[in-house]
Amino acid sequence: MTTTRLDGLLQTERRVINAATHEALRFLGMAHRQRTKRPAPGAAPDAIAIEADAPAPRIDWFRYTAGQLDEGPLEDVERLRAALGDDTVDWIHVQGFGDENQLREIADIFGIHPLALADAVNVPQRAKVDSYGSQQLVVLRMARSVDREIEFQQLSLFVGPHWVVTFEEHTGDIFDPVRTRLRAEGSSIRNSGADFLAYALIDAVVDGFFPVLDSLSEMLEDLEEAAIGDPEPHTLARIHSVRRLLIHLERIQRQQRDALLTLTHQDEGPFGQSVWPYLRDVQDHAIHVLDTIQTFREMTVGVMDIYLSSVANRTNDVMKTLTVIASLFIPMSFVAGVYGMNFDQMPELHWRWGYVGSWVVMIAMASGLLAWFARKGWLGDLSRSLDSKRDSADE
Amino acid sequence: MTTTRLDGLLQTERRVINAATHEALRFLGMAHRQRTKRPAPGAAPDAIAIEADAPAPRIDWFRYTAGQLDEGPLEDVERLRAALGDDTVDWIHVQGFGDENQLREIADIFGIHPLALADAVNVPQRAKVDSYGSQQLVVLRMARSVDREIEFQQLSLFVGPHWVVTFEEHTGDIFDPVRTRLRAEGSSIRNSGADFLAYALIDAVVDGFFPVLDSLSEMLEDLEEAAIGDPEPHTLARIHSVRRLLIHLERIQRQQRDALLTLTHQDEGPFGQSVWPYLRDVQDHAIHVLDTIQTFREMTVGVMDIYLSSVANRTNDVMKTLTVIASLFIPMSFVAGVYGMNFDQMPELHWRWGYVGSWVVMIAMASGLLAWFARKGWLGDLSRSLDSKRDSADE
Amino acid sequence: MTTTRLDGLLQTERRVINAATHEALRFLGMAHRQRTKRPAPGAAPDAIAIEADAPAPRIDWFRYTAGQLDEGPLEDVERLRAALGDDTVDWIHVQGFGDENQLREIADIFGIHPLALADAVNVPQRAKVDSYGSQQLVVLRMARSVDREIEFQQLSLFVGPHWVVTFEEHTGDIFDPVRTRLRAEGSSIRNSGADFLAYALIDAVVDGFFPVLDSLSEMLEDLEEAAIGDPEPHTLARIHSVRRLLIHLERIQRQQRDALLTLTHQDEGPFGQSVWPYLRDVQDHAIHVLDTIQTFREMTVGVMDIYLSSVANRTNDVMKTLTVIASLFIPMSFVAGVYGMNFDQMPELHWRWGYVGSWVVMIAMASGLLAWFARKGWLGDLSRSLDSKRDSADE
Amino acid sequence: MTTTRLDGLLQTERRVINAATHEALRFLGMAHRQRTKRPAPGAAPDAIAIEADAPAPRIDWFRYTAGQLDEGPLEDVERLRAALGDDTVDWIHVQGFGDENQLREIADIFGIHPLALADAVNVPQRAKVDSYGSQQLVVLRMARSVDREIEFQQLSLFVGPHWVVTFEEHTGDIFDPVRTRLRAEGSSIRNSGADFLAYALIDAVVDGFFPVLDSLSEMLEDLEEAAIGDPEPHTLARIHSVRRLLIHLERIQRQQRDALLTLTHQDEGPFGQSVWPYLRDVQDHAIHVLDTIQTFREMTVGVMDIYLSSVANRTNDVMKTLTVIASLFIPMSFVAGVYGMNFDQMPELHWRWGYVGSWVVMIAMASGLLAWFARKGWLGDLSRSLDSKRDSADE
Amino acid sequence: MTTTRLDGLLQTERRVINAATHEALRFLGMAHRQRTKRPAPGAAPDAIAIEADAPAPRIDWFRYTAGQLDEGPLEDVERLRAALGDDTVDWIHVQGFGDENQLREIADIFGIHPLALADAVNVPQRAKVDSYGSQQLVVLRMARSVDREIEFQQLSLFVGPHWVVTFEEHTGDIFDPVRTRLRAEGSSIRNSGADFLAYALIDAVVDGFFPVLDSLSEMLEDLEEAAIGDPEPHTLARIHSVRRLLIHLERIQRQQRDALLTLTHQDEGPFGQSVWPYLRDVQDHAIHVLDTIQTFREMTVGVMDIYLSSVANRTNDVMKTLTVIASLFIPMSFVAGVYGMNFDQMPELHWRWGYVGSWVVMIAMASGLLAWFARKGWLGDLSRSLDSKRDSADE
Repeated sequence: MTTTRLDGLLQTERRVINAATHEALRFLGMAHRQRTKRPAPGAAPDAIAIEADAPAPRIDWFRYTAGQLDEGPLEDVERLRAALGDDTVDWIHVQGFGDENQLREIADIFGIHPLALADAVNVPQRAKVDSYGSQQLVVLRMARSVDREIEFQQLSLFVGPHWVVTFEEHTGDIFDPVRTRLRAEGSSIRNSGADFLAYALIDAVVDGFFPVLDSLSEMLEDLEEAAIGDPEPHTLARIHSVRRLLIHLERIQRQQRDALLTLTHQDEGPFGQSVWPYLRDVQDHAIHVLDTIQTFREMTVGVMDIYLSSVANRTNDVMKTLTVIASLFIPMSFVAGVYGMNFDQMPELHWRWGYVGSWVVMIAMASGLLAWFARKGWLGDLSRSLDSKRDSADE
Repeated sequence: MTTTRLDGLLQTERRVINAATHEALRFLGMAHRQRTKRPAPGAAPDAIAIEADAPAPRIDWFRYTAGQLDEGPLEDVERLRAALGDDTVDWIHVQGFGDENQLREIADIFGIHPLALADAVNVPQRAKVDSYGSQQLVVLRMARSVDREIEFQQLSLFVGPHWVVTFEEHTGDIFDPVRTRLRAEGSSIRNSGADFLAYALIDAVVDGFFPVLDSLSEMLEDLEEAAIGDPEPHTLARIHSVRRLLIHLERIQRQQRDALLTLTHQDEGPFGQSVWPYLRDVQDHAIHVLDTIQTFREMTVGVMDIYLSSVANRTNDVMKTLTVIASLFIPMSFVAGVYGMNFDQMPELHWRWGYVGSWVVMIAMASGLLAWFARKGWLGDLSRSLDSKRDSADE
Repeated sequence: MTTTRLDGLLQTERRVINAATHEALRFLGMAHRQRTKRPAPGAAPDAIAIEADAPAPRIDWFRYTAGQLDEGPLEDVERLRAALGDDTVDWIHVQGFGDENQLREIADIFGIHPLALADAVNVPQRAKVDSYGSQQLVVLRMARSVDREIEFQQLSLFVGPHWVVTFEEHTGDIFDPVRTRLRAEGSSIRNSGADFLAYALIDAVVDGFFPVLDSLSEMLEDLEEAAIGDPEPHTLARIHSVRRLLIHLERIQRQQRDALLTLTHQDEGPFGQSVWPYLRDVQDHAIHVLDTIQTFREMTVGVMDIYLSSVANRTNDVMKTLTVIASLFIPMSFVAGVYGMNFDQMPELHWRWGYVGSWVVMIAMASGLLAWFARKGWLGDLSRSLDSKRDSADE
Repeated sequence: MTTTRLDGLLQTERRVINAATHEALRFLGMAHRQRTKRPAPGAAPDAIAIEADAPAPRIDWFRYTAGQLDEGPLEDVERLRAALGDDTVDWIHVQGFGDENQLREIADIFGIHPLALADAVNVPQRAKVDSYGSQQLVVLRMARSVDREIEFQQLSLFVGPHWVVTFEEHTGDIFDPVRTRLRAEGSSIRNSGADFLAYALIDAVVDGFFPVLDSLSEMLEDLEEAAIGDPEPHTLARIHSVRRLLIHLERIQRQQRDALLTLTHQDEGPFGQSVWPYLRDVQDHAIHVLDTIQTFREMTVGVMDIYLSSVANRTNDVMKTLTVIASLFIPMSFVAGVYGMNFDQMPELHWRWGYVGSWVVMIAMASGLLAWFARKGWLGDLSRSLDSKRDSADE
Repeated sequence: MTTTRLDGLLQTERRVINAATHEALRFLGMAHRQRTKRPAPGAAPDAIAIEADAPAPRIDWFRYTAGQLDEGPLEDVERLRAALGDDTVDWIHVQGFGDENQLREIADIFGIHPLALADAVNVPQRAKVDSYGSQQLVVLRMARSVDREIEFQQLSLFVGPHWVVTFEEHTGDIFDPVRTRLRAEGSSIRNSGADFLAYALIDAVVDGFFPVLDSLSEMLEDLEEAAIGDPEPHTLARIHSVRRLLIHLERIQRQQRDALLTLTHQDEGPFGQSVWPYLRDVQDHAIHVLDTIQTFREMTVGVMDIYLSSVANRTNDVMKTLTVIASLFIPMSFVAGVYGMNFDQMPELHWRWGYVGSWVVMIAMASGLLAWFARKGWLGDLSRSLDSKRDSADE
């Protein structure tokens, strides 16, 4: 009978926690594709696992020299094979993995190793930099703000001598500022090679984490306030979720930093020496992002301490309430009990001011204890704790 | 007299804890062979400790070239010695250690060092890679799902120029997908040497940990719910068991990763340069497994915090119950006590509405305190905590 | 109605916490420009983000040889271009970033890389040392005491063969002692090259942290006292703030140390071997600063423990109060209750000394319990805790 | 008067703790020689500190070739000097340090450096490997099981081209299996040089830790049970002692592992390349021992958590008892108090079923509260906690 | 009025804590010169900060060869300049910094770099080893036992080809054993060069820490006992102080070890290869000291846990007292209350044995509860806790 209602209540509590966890996962863009799409253990190493409902690839083609820029969708992949040359820089931007043949054809045209293609399509992979002869695969995690929510997806970037090929699972990226600079004749991208274009894309990805850090900073400030003002289980669940989120984020970002640091420690590869100062700049930003995340993690420890201490303070307040009330009335009740006794010989009972006197004694006892409690500061604590509770309930 | 029943109760409690620990150990496949089979200290270094009830070896022999594949059980080990050659790749797969002579004969045929054979048979050893001239010993821990339970055993893999020899303590492995690829003419395994076969086997072992991670992830989610909804000692025992399990698992996996990383940092050995990109792929997966386990470990800290905080909340609820009931009735009892006094001069006793008035006073006091407690939110906490307890008992 | 007042109270509490946090941030000089001025993600790497209200640059020019010193403001930047030579050492000190053209012009004159200029202007950056051919960029954080408050800002220092260029966001620096030594003919700065001047400036920056450490040491001592004498939420908020501050400060200082350590590990660059002993001296000081900060961080853990333990002691005191009072009066009330019973046959009621005897019994019970509590030391604890509370309220 | 008894009680408590600590120290073999015998600070570096009651050296001499073995006590050390040659392997095994002259004479015969001799005699030293020209000193800690107690002592092993000299402080070692193999003609030791003998001795020392690990594993399991079933101070003292023991043991073992790892990273020395695979095997075992100890240490953290949580549960049980009893009787007492009032006008007092009715009301209140407590699960908790306590007291 | 007394009480508490901290600082020899004497930031790098009340230097001069030793005070520093030669070893031992000119003159005679002199005089500096051409500066912290108190001061040791110069801030050192060995003709110091003398001094400094470790070990044992027997705030303050002390000491010792390790990793310098075995011996001792300090630090964590657990046990005891007393008397009072009711129809009141029966009921209830509490073991806990408290108060 009451079970239904109780179930409802408990489920509310669970929902709160799940919502907090879900919020954290969604924040990481992991709520709807939490598991890596992995081929079965023992499968061929270059097997590709594409979800049934993956969108068809949308391929954009930028071809430019210092003086000229052609851009547009690439419909027939075969056109590419003929068109590649040494005089221009080509950027092939693939969004969506719905057509395995097309993906393999592109890989074939650029001489991309099947294992590297598998890394680009079986997302998410660890952030890393792999060298395959004169080309390199850079795998990064990209953050994008959509409708007040932050979406994460993997960017796989292949750099060759005269071309860049990028793979993303979904449409939607953060490269519009790069495209704008690309279209501006005389910009540094237009006057440089494929390595500078790759750098510009990586730079956009790394800097895309700064807005995420700003959101996290606000979340932490909210949590600090909640830990003091509202030390209830759902606050604990939120702290726990943020901690989980930061653990994940730190790991991702540490891999990202390590991957980027290798870029300027390689003897050969597509990145020329002239781009190295720029790559070092990107590395600096990645280190800064990681530093900030680690600082946030250390702060959650403090927030947890505040929460636990607030819970202890609440218990203390409950104890004080009991102590004050019981300590006031138990001695008074004793006095009343004494004069409720039925002894034959109790002279006080027959005194004229006996009854009034008993009240005087009782009130004196209570006043003495009240004064003592006030001096201990307990009465103030009680009214304060009452007020803060009421106030936070009013909000 | 009552001792029997008490014993039973305590034993129930112990059973719960032991069951949780046992579950964790069984999960690691360590319940029934928890101790390493070690020769006595001071024994000869190549001594082999075989349990009395070890099953007789079952030996499978695969011999293949790009164009041809022979497979079948190997009954007479001596046949091998004559048959080995440079044109084919041979895979000898030994399951079961029941016949020391046969094991030593195989080692002799392939020139396996006695110490290496001891490492393969005195299981479990630390995961590692040891070089013996042109051959290498790779020791790994292998996870296999059997009847909703996960079994671990050691895989010892010897790679030589034209052959692979693998040792397992028990029958049952996870190599069926590899065998399928082996039987498919034109597959990459068939077109490559022994090093690629070794890679494929290692790859299957490493990827076999991903289902374990999925199970662990579910266990952790269950624990998070239990830590909030059911903060009893048996939940603590489960958290402790999972933590122990993760400590073990992290150690195993860290060794596994370190061992695999050495494979591509050796100047010479059976693994050719063409296999290195594949080995790096395996290393990536091993790092990913380790990263996930470490993340899980950091999460158990949070689960522990939630548990402890839930216990504190329970205590808080008990305190609130006492405080509310005692604070309501102690003042009312005082009023009743006052009018139970036997003074001669107590005018209220003779008032017409004295008795009713005393009820009014008592009810007013109680109402005031109830309103105060309600404003503090204590009444709501009590009913909520009641409901959630009842509900979890109903489940 | 009361809501207003309650809001006020809660806001007081919040204000306390915010004030503590603000105090910590202001201490770090971060309260009014907490966020890095960053160009938008994807912008050109050498873009400069200058706030609208940035003050116009104030440029000071020191030119000296062993025998001569010219100093004064530099109004026309173009004058510099013509005047640079190999015989003198020039120090250009730029304070304020309000004029992008002027900044770019200076960078052009000295051949400063656009990325390096961006690092100098988009403050704050990570402390670091970057090499650009024969010149180096040293980025440091500088602490300056203003009106009992400590201000932090970035110092960007470019060292070339014969010149030093320094950038600061705001006027106000700590280089007056260096200027004094510069003006003294025969000082070691005057007799050395640009690298020694750069060293002297770096030395002043690093040593400028020692007064900050002294302030922090006093803050920690205050906190230790507060944690014992006043374990209230606002003390917790202060501990948390100091911990946050130390986390930030340690990170800054670790970067600073790492940057300085690279100065003596470079094969070539503007710093000559004769300056290396001096640079090693600076490194020593930076390590000392970092060591001290880390020691402080480890101490905050102890302060937190003291705080939590004090809270537990307070709860203990509350419990003791309740226990002493309730345990004294509940047994006495029982005795009174017994002789309030209305049985027909209660011989004690009719005894001559019955009433007095009941008092004797009650007082004996109370005295016994009091003696027991006194032996447990609880009475002393209560009076002590009362006194200390009162005293700390008096302060 | 009572002081004597109280002293006795307190001393019992102290004895429990000291006994636990002592047990741990004795376990480490450190109870009776806790302090290093160190010469005074500033003394000559090769000074030797021999205790007054040190036993006289007992020296065993093994001389063997593949075909022949002579063994027996060595009474006249000078005989050695003449007998040493290149054709045989000699093992001099010294037990007891009571005769400094004899020790120095042996050192002189084998060309042992005075500092090395001081390390061998001033025990215990850090485990380490020191090279002195063509000979090496290996210092290890040796564990030996005597009468259900484990004794530790230092083994100092000098390896030269054709000889091994070992020093132990006390008689009693774990080398009997090695001696057995030595006496067996055709064994690998007899067919190899002094380096293989040294390896065999080191191997026996390292493998001698496995029984210690087994004992520790049982201690930890006992502690886990005690932490749940008997969370009293003496259990805490035992946890603390085991933790101290593991801290010591980890440190010893880490030094041991580091020392052994250097053996195969040296360009020259007495250990030939043919022994390296065996040394790597020993290193593996040492790493395994250290890994296990570290796992144990991480487990003690969990045991501590369980203990603290059990204490909290106990407090919770006490609270529940008070709450249940007080909450049941306080309301009932209030009802009784009401009808003990002496108002003139109390109609209930004169009702026929008034008295019975008051009981009905009181019992109804108590039943309602009991039902509520039962639904909260508190009654079950109380009986369970009672039972488990009783049971553990019965054990 | 009472404020004075209260102030006194609080100040007592503060004094206890300050005394504990002070004791720790004095132990480290830092109480009376807690701050580094630093020249102001920006001052010349070789500036020397000498306190106004620094004692005048006392300079001792030892000159020796294998066959001859001259020793005595050095009054005229200029005498040194002429007397230095290659045939003898000179040790100049400077105690007290009160005369800057004299210090600079000595530095000039031996060619000591001004920065190195500043490091020697502006104490305390980080322990370190700095090379200046053919000479080296070794900075160490020296511990000396004076009147049951341990004093720390910096020893700065300059080693050149034929001389050693040492600086100490105060008179009093631990080199008497070294001097004794120096005076003994034929000792190893007399037969070796300046590097061996330097080694002997360093060895005395490092070994001087062993008595400090012994004192610390005793302090820790005292604390363990206090944490169990006397868990009051002043014990917490002592634990905190020892922890602070160990943090400082570990840092000092880590620097010392790192500095000493560099001595045998330098290609050239004053220390010859023949001294290296001795230096490695010193390094071993320094590592041992550091290991012990780290072990102590890990133990303080355990002591803190014991303290917190003892506090929790105390709270538990208070709760049990309240629970036992309240639970005994509240039910009995209820019975008394029932028979104090004034209903007309209360048959029990008129029974002959009614009153006695009510006592029987009350005593039965109390006995039942007492038996229950005894079975829970609470009564024993109470008496034990009482006794231990009394006993510790008696001490």
